[in-house]
Parts: sequence; structure tokens; C-alpha cells
Amino acid sequence: MLRIRGLHIINRINIPSTQHVRGISKVSQIEPEKPEIKTSIPGPRTQALLKELSALQQADSVQLFADYDKSTGNYFVDADGNVFLDAFTQISSVPIGYNHPELLKCFDDKHNLRSLINRPALGVFPSLDWPKKLNNVLMAVAPKGLNGVSTMMCGSCSNENAYKTVFMWYRKRERGGKIDFTQEEMASCMANQPPGSPNLSILSFQGGFHGRTFGALTTTRSKPIHKLDCPAFDWPQAPFPRYKYPLEQNQRENKKEDDKCLEQVADAIEQYKKKGNPVAGLIVEPIQSEGGDHEASPEFFQRLQKLCKENGVAYIIDEVQTGCGPTGKMWCYEHFDLPSPPDVLTFSKKMLTGGFYFNVENKPSQPYRVFNTWMGDPGKLILLEKVLEVIENEKLISVVNESGKVLKKGLHELEHEFPNLINSVRGRGTFLSFNSPTTKCRDQINSDLKKNGVLGGVCGENTIRLRPALIFQKKHAEIYIDILRKTLKGM
Amino acid sequence: MLRIRGLHIINRINIPSTQHVRGISKVSQIEPEKPEIKTSIPGPRTQALLKELSALQQADSVQLFADYDKSTGNYFVDADGNVFLDAFTQISSVPIGYNHPELLKCFDDKHNLRSLINRPALGVFPSLDWPKKLNNVLMAVAPKGLNGVSTMMCGSCSNENAYKTVFMWYRKRERGGKIDFTQEEMASCMANQPPGSPNLSILSFQGGFHGRTFGALTTTRSKPIHKLDCPAFDWPQAPFPRYKYPLEQNQRENKKEDDKCLEQVADAIEQYKKKGNPVAGLIVEPIQSEGGDHEASPEFFQRLQKLCKENGVAYIIDEVQTGCGPTGKMWCYEHFDLPSPPDVLTFSKKMLTGGFYFNVENKPSQPYRVFNTWMGDPGKLILLEKVLEVIENEKLISVVNESGKVLKKGLHELEHEFPNLINSVRGRGTFLSFNSPTTKCRDQINSDLKKNGVLGGVCGENTIRLRPALIFQKKHAEIYIDILRKTLKGM
Repeated sequence: MLRIRGLHIINRINIPSTQHVRGISKVSQIEPEKPEIKTSIPGPRTQALLKELSALQQADSVQLFADYDKSTGNYFVDADGNVFLDAFTQISSVPIGYNHPELLKCFDDKHNLRSLINRPALGVFPSLDWPKKLNNVLMAVAPKGLNGVSTMMCGSCSNENAYKTVFMWYRKRERGGKIDFTQEEMASCMANQPPGSPNLSILSFQGGFHGRTFGALTTTRSKPIHKLDCPAFDWPQAPFPRYKYPLEQNQRENKKEDDKCLEQVADAIEQYKKKGNPVAGLIVEPIQSEGGDHEASPEFFQRLQKLCKENGVAYIIDEVQTGCGPTGKMWCYEHFDLPSPPDVLTFSKKMLTGGFYFNVENKPSQPYRVFNTWMGDPGKLILLEKVLEVIENEKLISVVNESGKVLKKGLHELEHEFPNLINSVRGRGTFLSFNSPTTKCRDQINSDLKKNGVLGGVCGENTIRLRPALIFQKKHAEIYIDILRKTLKGM
Repeated sequence: MLRIRGLHIINRINIPSTQHVRGISKVSQIEPEKPEIKTSIPGPRTQALLKELSALQQADSVQLFADYDKSTGNYFVDADGNVFLDAFTQISSVPIGYNHPELLKCFDDKHNLRSLINRPALGVFPSLDWPKKLNNVLMAVAPKGLNGVSTMMCGSCSNENAYKTVFMWYRKRERGGKIDFTQEEMASCMANQPPGSPNLSILSFQGGFHGRTFGALTTTRSKPIHKLDCPAFDWPQAPFPRYKYPLEQNQRENKKEDDKCLEQVADAIEQYKKKGNPVAGLIVEPIQSEGGDHEASPEFFQRLQKLCKENGVAYIIDEVQTGCGPTGKMWCYEHFDLPSPPDVLTFSKKMLTGGFYFNVENKPSQPYRVFNTWMGDPGKLILLEKVLEVIENEKLISVVNESGKVLKKGLHELEHEFPNLINSVRGRGTFLSFNSPTTKCRDQINSDLKKNGVLGGVCGENTIRLRPALIFQKKHAEIYIDILRKTLKGM
């Protein structure tokens, strides 16, 4: 508590990062005091740059061009000099804010610099410090009970390779543990036919998002625009709970929702077994993010795990967006008190490197199966090592929990003040969200928030999601709530 | 020519990089004079590290652990202090050698450093210098006639997103250019069913390698071990020419091989149209690499393009391994004198960033379709910018052509000296290869080469591939040939 208060004070009086004041946790950066909007949004320079970029690629998703030399901490500065409080942080992928001094120092170390520019094929010629790096950085925050890890490039790539691992594990069990392949398997897979390319599936949830490459995209079920015109595998789906809020007033109804969804998971597993395309794995987000910030109860996740175990289905938890602290724990699934770990946990975004944890006993028996040229990027692990140090030294998980409380309290107040504009406040830590009655209203709020100096994200049909960095403090939460109130008043 | 000789001399007398000597092209690094093997291979430290890594993941593909602090230029130093001449360069992904001084300086520039550590979601909040960066770096080496580019993370991801672009383009043409989707399309894609998730395919060649995620893996047809146990789409294949060497003595037969393969491409397109899974795109490597370094004639590629045009099939050239200079041109397909550019060209490896070039007129009409969180990595473009400068300043394409001649001449001599051990010398630039009579013999040669201080790669059934960096000079070529001769003599 003292540390958190210390944080706040030190930051306000702008003492720069590296000083330790009487053993009290420090804050690293000098930030602007508040947002400052100088031009229309998007400003003239941003508009000109958008034209330039659109000549080269589909760029209609671009919101702003950034000045990353001037952005700092929780504040994003755009090409027109506008200063925003960032509650979206590059689609939730910035762990400790912009230009953190510790990250700026990372490559002063010549060994780190050489690791960065001599990017190896990690599956063939890793650096001599790679095993130690995996142990000291990634295994230091491994989900309890998972003893293996593979690094990858991004979230999609992590999920794709998790699926491959799960399929190989499933087939190995089907072979009774034998590791040899038949001639028929070897020949048929070259023609993309079973048994070598087997009919096996991954079950995913309606509203789930797991990436955009063809395997990952098949399991993504958030919005049509992500999937249209892309061939997909015939893999099963099930509904994910859609709760009524506030939770404490809707317990019975929400419990029924859990029951209904779990029943349909069981049905889908049964149905796909019968149709000869059995479910080898099931993938689920601890909080469905892109699909609309849908939560489910710890009981739901416990019962889902039980269902998986009973059916020999691998339980894959996708923590690409929830992982690395924003829910107030390192991994969001830790909120669920599972009796045993998931079979696979995938990560990316705030972890800076993609990858997945698993039981090393279930790794493929042969090499070159879960493999690619780079297999990740040591340069990202160097940054992650520093990020994890900063999280520990600056007690950022506590910061998240403190700021999250302020944010949630403020949002609850606002849903009472403006019941026609926002509702269903929910989430954990600073990983929070609320709904609007319509998509149009939601988009208007988000757009006005931006004009008032706050960057926020949208998701699902009618949701605004908060995805600040882990250094988002109580004072930032207060600014956010103030600006949201002003925005709602102005509508 | 003078420049090339200059290179050679300056390097021999070990003048470090940054000096310009009488306007003559310089060489950048002080290298060891030759390989030096001090321990058994793998050495004791390497073996201990392998044990450590294998406790965390499937690591049987790991050959050596590297000391990247000590590796320099064309020389790779392992954990046991052994010095190897590197003719494999991290599966062909190191453009200008280890620890190039220009790359080591890249992040002295604070703007570059901040671009590296503030990794944006490029599709939403790119840096204000991103359009210029794309123009100055990637478009400066764009295949002639292609005016669009998207950056991606790796080769698999580049191919997957190229396929998505091609499918969207195909469906847009089917809709007569209309950009709206029907309710039926939007609903069906959420269940992974047509018409929203259409039955469309990508044709690829037997022996081709295009990556390891599920869409890319479906088109990969190099070896069973890459594909076993992974579900795949029902997409068509056709044979890729298997030439007899030397080419000049087998012209008639090789021409027949072209005819046969092209006929089967046409047949497959016809067959998959009839079975309701039409071919939207065809992907081909200019030289099949992983599958065994199989070449095809310029005429083959010209006729293939014609076939694609006649059938409304997008022509995708996969230059992930061949791109960025090793064949003696920036892009290998430039050797083929195509009357018009391919529809898409994909890249990664030596380009350091993944991505693909295309016609911007064919980009998706809506945003968020070819999209992901990071959409590439500006840190890699900063390195690539420097790599392209070095390629120009050090005239590395000429170096490749000169060294390639020395290598090829030496290999031809060796195939005459040791006709029972090596044959079918082939390739362009330093992108060369040769066969052995059997897999076992090939593996023995490669393993003995390593013990004699040369890192080489294998591919296909019985091929050794050379994949040196672009700074591999005549003197390195001579060392390579000497050691290969010694190796073959010792067998």
C-alpha cells in the first residue's frame, strides 16, 4: 500500500525513474500531466500520412500516426502533436508504457545488442545462453505445473503451433504411444488426405478470437469480417456464456447460462466424434476479448476442464490478450482455481514474444514437427526479461489491482449516472469494459473519448474495452473517469 | 570488378569496416582466416546445453549452440569455441554475416531505438515515419510492376496472408466487383461453411515448401515429417520439374519434363474447378529449396504464368528463401524474364521482416481482413534498411555473382573428381547445391564437413545446399571447396 502511494507521489513530483527513494517503489517516467488535444482528430498531418500509406496497402483501419519519440508512459503523442491518455495500448500489447527508461537501456549491453542483430534459427543454432534465458525469463512466470515452453512469433502462430502439438499428442495416444508412422500415413499426408492428414478438430467458442492464419482463423468466431472469403476447416463451436450484470443480482440466471453452454460443449464433442472428426483440443480465452469482453465464472472453467479430461480433449487456454498481468494476476486463469493446470497456455502481446507453455512430456517425439526458421526472437526475450523485472520492482500487479478498483468504482458510478449510455460494467484488474445500448452509441462514445484525449478500444457489438498498460495508476484512472464523464455528459 | 578485387584485398589485410579506401568498396569486418575445430562435434559444452534445452522442449533439431558475441562475418563460433565457415547461415536467413558493424550501430540512433522498443500495432497506430519507411526501404526493392506491400512476421505468416488476399480478390471478382457481403455469407462463415467460408484452393507443387501454419502447411509438400498428424485442406498439387544434369546435355529431356508438369498443372486446375473447389491461386518457389533445390527453366515459369492468366489463377511467387540477393539478383524470378510481374511475391528470411508485394488495386476493399496485432515489426525494417545500404555500398550482388562462379566451378571439378559421391551441381549465384547418391552418403558428407569446419545445409532426399551470406567472397568460396575436397577424400 505504501509502495503504491509512494508511486503516486513520486510520479506527481516528477522524480525521474532510476532513483530509489527510501526503499519505496519508484515510478519510471516523467509524463505529461494530462491529455492535450490541439487539432481536429484526425489532424491534418495524420490525414496526409494516411493518404500516403493507403497508396501502398489497405490502411482504413489506421486511426492515428504516432510520434514514438515523444510518447511516454501512459501518454501517446500523435503526428499532429496531440497528447492522449492511452487506454488501448496498441491493442493491449504494451506492458510498461512508452519509452520506459529500463527498456531504452536494454541494448546498451553489447551482448544484448548482438543477440538482437544476430537473430538465429532457434531450433538449430540457438545462442549458448538460450536455455538459461528460457529458464530465467519464461519459466520464471510459467503457469504452475507446466514445465515446457516453445517461443513463437505472434499470437496466431502460437495458437497454430499449440494446435499442432495437440494433434500430434492425440495421434500419439491413438497409436498407443508408438512413435513410428505407417507407410500409408506418410504417403497420404503428402496428398493432404487421412490417415496422414487426419480428420481432427479443435473446438472453439462463439465470440472467441484466436488469430487470423487459417488454423487459428477457423477457431476464431468473433466477427464475419475476420473470416469472410477464407476457406475454413469443419471444426465445431459451442456458445460461451453471456452473463447478465451486475453478477451478484443474476447468479441463478448466469449459472443456467453456464449449464447450457457446457451441455453444448459436450454435445459438440459427441457429435464430431460421431461424424469422424473428433475433437483433439478445445481453446478458450479466460475473458473473450475481441468478441466483446465476455467473462465466465471460475466454476465454468473448472467444469470445462473436467469435461475435457473426461473426453480426452486437450484444454488450451489462450492468454494472448489476458496474460502478463492486466487482470491483476500474471495469468488470468489463476482466478479460476483449477485443480490442475491447463494442457497448453498460449501467450503473446504484452509478453512481447509469442509462445506457449505445455507439459514437456507431451512434446512431439520427433524434431522438425513444431518448427520454423526463427522459432521466436531472442531480441524480444531480452525486452521481456526487463519488463518482468520492472513488473516486480515497481509492484505493477498491485498497481493494476489498485487502479482497477478506482476504474471499476468510477465506471459503476457512471453507469448509474448515465444508464441510457453505458451498462454491464465488468472485468478484472484494469482489464475492464462496459456496454452501450447500440453499436452506434458505442462508436460515438469511443470517438468522442478520443476527441477528448483518451484512446480506448472497442470490441464485440457494443462494448468499449479498457486495455491500459500495467503502469496505469490511480491518477490515470481518475483522469480516465473524468474524461469519460465529460464525454457522456456531452452526448 | 575493381571493387570486388578491392574487397578481397582489404579484407585480407584486415582493415576494419568504416574506412573508405580511395573510393574502393570496402569490407566490413575482421574475420578469422579459416575455420578452427578444437573439440569433438558436438563439443562437451554444446552437449550439456542440449540436455538443458531438451528439458523444456523438443530440441533434437538443434545442431550447435552459438557464441554470437564471437561469431563474425562468415564465421560462426560455437559454445565450445569451434570456428566454422558458415555456408548455411541460420537456414539462409543471415544477409550480411554476423555482427556486421553497420548493424551494430543501427540502434545508436535514439529514434531507431525508440522505434524498436515501442512496437506498435502497425495496422492502427503506425509511426509517423512508417509510410516513408515502407517507400524508402521495401518499395525501393519492390519487384517491378508491384506497387503494394504488407509487412508480416515470418514466411509462413506472409504466405498465409498472401493466400487470404488472393481468396478475397477472387471472391470480389466473382461478385463482379461488388464489395458488400450477403447475409448468408456473413452467417455461414461464422460456422466455417460456404458460401462465407468458400471452397477455394491454392495449388502448390510436389516438393514445395511454403511454411508450417495450417494454410501454408497444406501447400507445403516437401517431407512427411512436416505434415504428419496435421489436418489439411483438400487443395491440389502438381509435379515440379525434376531436371537431369548437366542441363546443356539434357535439354530435350528437361523440356519434356516442363511439358509434363505444366500439363498436370492445367489438369489439376480443371479437376478442382469441376469438383467445386476452384484454384484461386498457385504458389511456386523460383528454386524449390527445402524440397531439394529443384530448379525450373525460365520458359517453365513463363508458361506457368500464362496458364495462370488464362485460368484466372493468381500467380504467387514465394521468394522467402531465394529473395534478397543470393541468386545473383535481388529476386530470383528476375532471371525468368516474365512478360509481366507475378500477382504476389512473398518474402522473409534475409529480408529480416516477413511480408508480401502485390498490386494495391487488388487489396481487400475493407479493413481488418488482412490484419493482425503487430502486422510486422518496425525494428526489423530498421535493420533491413541498413542491410540494403550495405548490399549497395559493398556491391554485394556482384560479390555473390563472383563467389558463385568460383563455387560452381569448384563443385563441377569435384563432381568430376568424386563422381561416386557428388553429382548434379546446380543453382544460381551462391544459391547452389549438389546431390549425393544416397541420403546416407549425403548426411555423412554434411556431418564430415562440419567436423572439418564448414556448416552446410541439407535438403530433399540427397542434397546439400549452400546458403552463405551475401558477404561470402571468393576467398571463402576457395576455403569451402578446399574443405569439401578434403572431406570427400576422407570418405
